[in-house]
Amino acid sequence: MKIKLLYSCLLLAAAGSAFAQDTPDPAMVQKIREEGLNHSKVMDIAYHLTDASGPRLSGSPGLKRAQDWAVNELKTWGMVNAKREAWGKFGKGWEVQKNYVAMTAPYYHALIAIPKAWTPGTNGPIKGDVILVKADTLTDLDKYKGTLKGKVIIFDTKPGVERTFKADGIRYTDEQLDEMAKAKPQAPGAQRRGGPNSPQFTAMQKARALRAAINTFLQGESVGLVLTQARGSDGTVFTTNGASYADTAKAVSPELETSGEDFQRILRLVKAGEKVSIEADIKTQFFTDDLQGYNVVGEITGTDKKLKEQVVMIGGHLDSWHAATGATDNAAGSAVMLEVMRILKAVNFHPRRTIRIALWSSEEQGLFGSRGYVFNHFGDPKTMELKPEQSKVSAYYNLDNGSGKLRGIYLQGDSLAGPIFKAWLQPFKDLGAATVTISNTGSTDHVSFDAVGVPGFQFIQDPLDYGSRTHHSNQDTYDKLSEDDLKQAATIVASFVYNTSQRDDMIPRKELPKPQPTRN
Amino acid sequence: MKIKLLYSCLLLAAAGSAFAQDTPDPAMVQKIREEGLNHSKVMDIAYHLTDASGPRLSGSPGLKRAQDWAVNELKTWGMVNAKREAWGKFGKGWEVQKNYVAMTAPYYHALIAIPKAWTPGTNGPIKGDVILVKADTLTDLDKYKGTLKGKVIIFDTKPGVERTFKADGIRYTDEQLDEMAKAKPQAPGAQRRGGPNSPQFTAMQKARALRAAINTFLQGESVGLVLTQARGSDGTVFTTNGASYADTAKAVSPELETSGEDFQRILRLVKAGEKVSIEADIKTQFFTDDLQGYNVVGEITGTDKKLKEQVVMIGGHLDSWHAATGATDNAAGSAVMLEVMRILKAVNFHPRRTIRIALWSSEEQGLFGSRGYVFNHFGDPKTMELKPEQSKVSAYYNLDNGSGKLRGIYLQGDSLAGPIFKAWLQPFKDLGAATVTISNTGSTDHVSFDAVGVPGFQFIQDPLDYGSRTHHSNQDTYDKLSEDDLKQAATIVASFVYNTSQRDDMIPRKELPKPQPTRN
Repeated sequence: MKIKLLYSCLLLAAAGSAFAQDTPDPAMVQKIREEGLNHSKVMDIAYHLTDASGPRLSGSPGLKRAQDWAVNELKTWGMVNAKREAWGKFGKGWEVQKNYVAMTAPYYHALIAIPKAWTPGTNGPIKGDVILVKADTLTDLDKYKGTLKGKVIIFDTKPGVERTFKADGIRYTDEQLDEMAKAKPQAPGAQRRGGPNSPQFTAMQKARALRAAINTFLQGESVGLVLTQARGSDGTVFTTNGASYADTAKAVSPELETSGEDFQRILRLVKAGEKVSIEADIKTQFFTDDLQGYNVVGEITGTDKKLKEQVVMIGGHLDSWHAATGATDNAAGSAVMLEVMRILKAVNFHPRRTIRIALWSSEEQGLFGSRGYVFNHFGDPKTMELKPEQSKVSAYYNLDNGSGKLRGIYLQGDSLAGPIFKAWLQPFKDLGAATVTISNTGSTDHVSFDAVGVPGFQFIQDPLDYGSRTHHSNQDTYDKLSEDDLKQAATIVASFVYNTSQRDDMIPRKELPKPQPTRN
Repeated sequence: MKIKLLYSCLLLAAAGSAFAQDTPDPAMVQKIREEGLNHSKVMDIAYHLTDASGPRLSGSPGLKRAQDWAVNELKTWGMVNAKREAWGKFGKGWEVQKNYVAMTAPYYHALIAIPKAWTPGTNGPIKGDVILVKADTLTDLDKYKGTLKGKVIIFDTKPGVERTFKADGIRYTDEQLDEMAKAKPQAPGAQRRGGPNSPQFTAMQKARALRAAINTFLQGESVGLVLTQARGSDGTVFTTNGASYADTAKAVSPELETSGEDFQRILRLVKAGEKVSIEADIKTQFFTDDLQGYNVVGEITGTDKKLKEQVVMIGGHLDSWHAATGATDNAAGSAVMLEVMRILKAVNFHPRRTIRIALWSSEEQGLFGSRGYVFNHFGDPKTMELKPEQSKVSAYYNLDNGSGKLRGIYLQGDSLAGPIFKAWLQPFKDLGAATVTISNTGSTDHVSFDAVGVPGFQFIQDPLDYGSRTHHSNQDTYDKLSEDDLKQAATIVASFVYNTSQRDDMIPRKELPKPQPTRN
């Protein structure tokens, strides 16, 4: 109760001053622009998080390498309290240590295929013939009993490869940005298409349950390998997990997400009655020595006696999927946020409020890193029992929509922040960032803050080829990063952090959300 | 001389009747449309040429499988003289029998990389560290002497991966087609950009010579493997050959064309001073039992006493590159031409002139199959000494620009054929094919006919993603075929063949070209 009372006072105070003194200091804006646009280190940072570290699946050695590099770099730049901070139990680490699969009959063809995350290997080289398993219900499986040992299993799957006449890479048009700016606030209970209780969601759950049961059957039958069709085309393979990361996870068969072209070729041959043989050698390694999940944190300490207990937070998730180096998802956002900290140090800025960066882990499995951090520091969204720190965070800024430059910011319904952010974007009209929308954007770590009433924001970014090529794919590599876009983003975020830290009042807050007992 | 005199008479006769009696028979057009659009077998044919046969590199078992299937199918459909016909000496066959390569340090990552055609394998599994070889001149190589044994060699190469905001797939716009229709005849001697004696060509020759010398050096140093950057991005790898197909070809090192993303990652790591290790197991097989090259031919015999000695020819090359199944280059054109023969049989057509299909080989190495056939049957473009058969071919129609539907036809400067083809396209306006352009299109087998004065034509096709994704790439697969486009093409070509075979006169010819002594 005490907490809530304090919160209400803050809300009034903030609201009262929302329109005051929010014109950015031109001198500091100029310093930040000069450092961010003309002395950028963002691509060098991105190199270390991608090429040098490798894939950064949660719990993997690659993520540990990137975290250690980031902690060390923050210290080198003069940040304080830079460390890996445990957020709670995650589960097993996993990485690919060998990945070879080819069709050997009717002729030789090496496949583009990626082990599904947290699936086992083949325990050495294997050879097997392909069997097309058709099962719409569990009883359909009976006829396969005792026939699948050592076989390579495929399922009848619609072709995913579609000829496209649309560009992979896109930027928002002025019309699209105007639409965003005109958006009306969303009703809190508004049901997302495909969200819980929607027909799509129910159908998906049903399909998942059947697939889980089939997996158990196949594993019991000791199949050699399962090949499923990946989303994507032209050699681009989008990846997922084939088993749980939990230390208690059920055993599954080795399973590869196979490029659409390779999968459909095998399927057509099998349906035509050809004998198709596969050879494979898949080695995956699990890591169970430390089941904890970790975030990276680091700070520039505030200097204002009254305000230094208050915090401006920035972040993005550092974990990625495993088939590439997660350059756009989300080394890009992580590199930008690290660059923001570097810029603020480089311009010798001594903030009133403390500035804290957090690079999350296990975002891809359910925002676990940020949720764990929020639970440990701010409160429990299930009960809305809040901790004192909850009242001390002015705002959290997140970046996790690829490599595209900033076009503006989502208010997540926090209308009182609108005029402030509009004023802060003024100096960056020439860089294409001017749109403030009341809309929510979801699916990443600012949501964890929003869930306990801490203002959490994500910026609007040009999509580029995030949806078509890189997001979760084997093609999410350093090459896909757009240098000029990342420099622009770091410059604008640095300016937002500067303004948030110097502002007399904290960013005004929305009404506290209701407890969400079903949240997991 | 006798031949040339006869030719001139034919030319006058043909020219005289170029505008007569060229309105297609609506009943036959309707029959052909019904069979071609509603009872098509073109995708089934394409399946057998691609998925079922595999890669069809010249001289490979895959090409032999496709040729044997085509010969057998032509016989099944009731064609006569269906056979593989030797056109002359080609060289060695070659195929990939194992293709595995991965980075093992600083972390594991399996590469998307394709052996260059006619390169050797690694003779079993190998491991080696990557060495960046910098050589702008041969003397630059001295410093590497004795240091490269078993190493994996890369060269400093500019990134080829570019973010694109253009669609992979395109169709011609009405404006583009109007431009083609308005084109002026090209001067015979007109120098193509990048053609012989152009600066681009000279520079390319110089670079090639240096690379050849470097290859000899590397081979002498017993390097383990060479990785070069392939054109393409997002998992698409465009392939070439790394050595000659000639039975006398110099030995080279094993060499893989590596996806742009994978190559640049390795290059960035090496330049940053990281130790990069590679493991690979490449097996390629050469075939030297038969060095002959073969085309597939088959006929529907003419029924007109006077005209049956004359021939209408259609064709396209059946050989492909090796990384995929050459679906758009050129199973598409081959499948369409086979379907044309099937359609004409299916509608129970008894042509006046003989109709002959030819599916070429070694087009990718220099139009060798069609040039050899033309040399054997029609004459020598170096001397313009012609054989009697040269005067008996009314026209040759070629298809080799991917899977896109027909939009019209290139006249190759044969203005007298223009009004005839315009009339023949009339019934297909509704299918989007109406454009007749005086322009030449080059780089494929109709050129071999044109070179000895036999009217050789190629159709205008929508590009689709031929240039951006499929042409010579590891993604040239059955999935990239556009069924409706192929049906449309087969229907229109069948109608052209019908009209050519029934026309009182042969297609009028251009002036005979001059001898081309330098042609090889």
